[in-house]
Amino acid sequence: MALSADECWARLRASAHGVLATVHPQRGADAVPVVFVTVGDRVVVPIDTVKRKRDAKMQRIVNLERDARCVLLVDHYAEDWSALWWVRVHATAIEVAPTPEVVALLAEKYPDYAAAGSIASTIVLTPTAVRGWAAA
Amino acid sequence: MALSADECWARLRASAHGVLATVHPQRGADAVPVVFVTVGDRVVVPIDTVKRKRDAKMQRIVNLERDARCVLLVDHYAEDWSALWWVRVHATAIEVAPTPEVVALLAEKYPDYAAAGSIASTIVLTPTAVRGWAAA
Repeated sequence: MALSADECWARLRASAHGVLATVHPQRGADAVPVVFVTVGDRVVVPIDTVKRKRDAKMQRIVNLERDARCVLLVDHYAEDWSALWWVRVHATAIEVAPTPEVVALLAEKYPDYAAAGSIASTIVLTPTAVRGWAAA
Repeated sequence: MALSADECWARLRASAHGVLATVHPQRGADAVPVVFVTVGDRVVVPIDTVKRKRDAKMQRIVNLERDARCVLLVDHYAEDWSALWWVRVHATAIEVAPTPEVVALLAEKYPDYAAAGSIASTIVLTPTAVRGWAAA
């Protein structure tokens, strides 16, 4: 069954992780696991300082600067398929310096981000379509 | 740490589900949750008869007929981030009628597919790159 917009957002807020797919000119699509917070009608994906050190410029940022379109899929898998559900957010996204509000929300949701300076940057998704489905 | 090719395949074989991202001309990328089996060096995603009835032609098939490039991400999330890992398969994919071998593998891995006639078709991924990472 299709989920209402409110239900989609409620499940997004309650979810800890998802998969972000971006456009790559040679590979077609890239996909990476991400964590995120919702801020109003935006979805914010952190880029933490650990990742920032490892890769001078992350491929997801390179992809988004070239083509801002992306999709975030949050899905719940279970051996009992009557418990399956997913929420999908099509969006355009840009890199944005982290605001204090976003840093606080991330620290609250993810204990690993409680340390000062753990968030190097963020990717802010402006949704163009939000859809969801649940088996039951 | 990067995972070896053997370790990537071992984790793929042991995993029940992933996210398949395909290319869409307007949206850029689409992403759907999928189940799959590995057959030699291919990854096979079933299209079951329940889904086939619901959508005359699934968007993932329409996308792949237009652009065969796709990426499958299998990722393990945990609140303890030292347990995180993922395996990513870039591939080209085509729709293929299900072989008896694939039907048997799917039925063995997923009890919901044990019923005769539950697999309508399959998407066969030929990997172009397989990479993986684990936090520890």
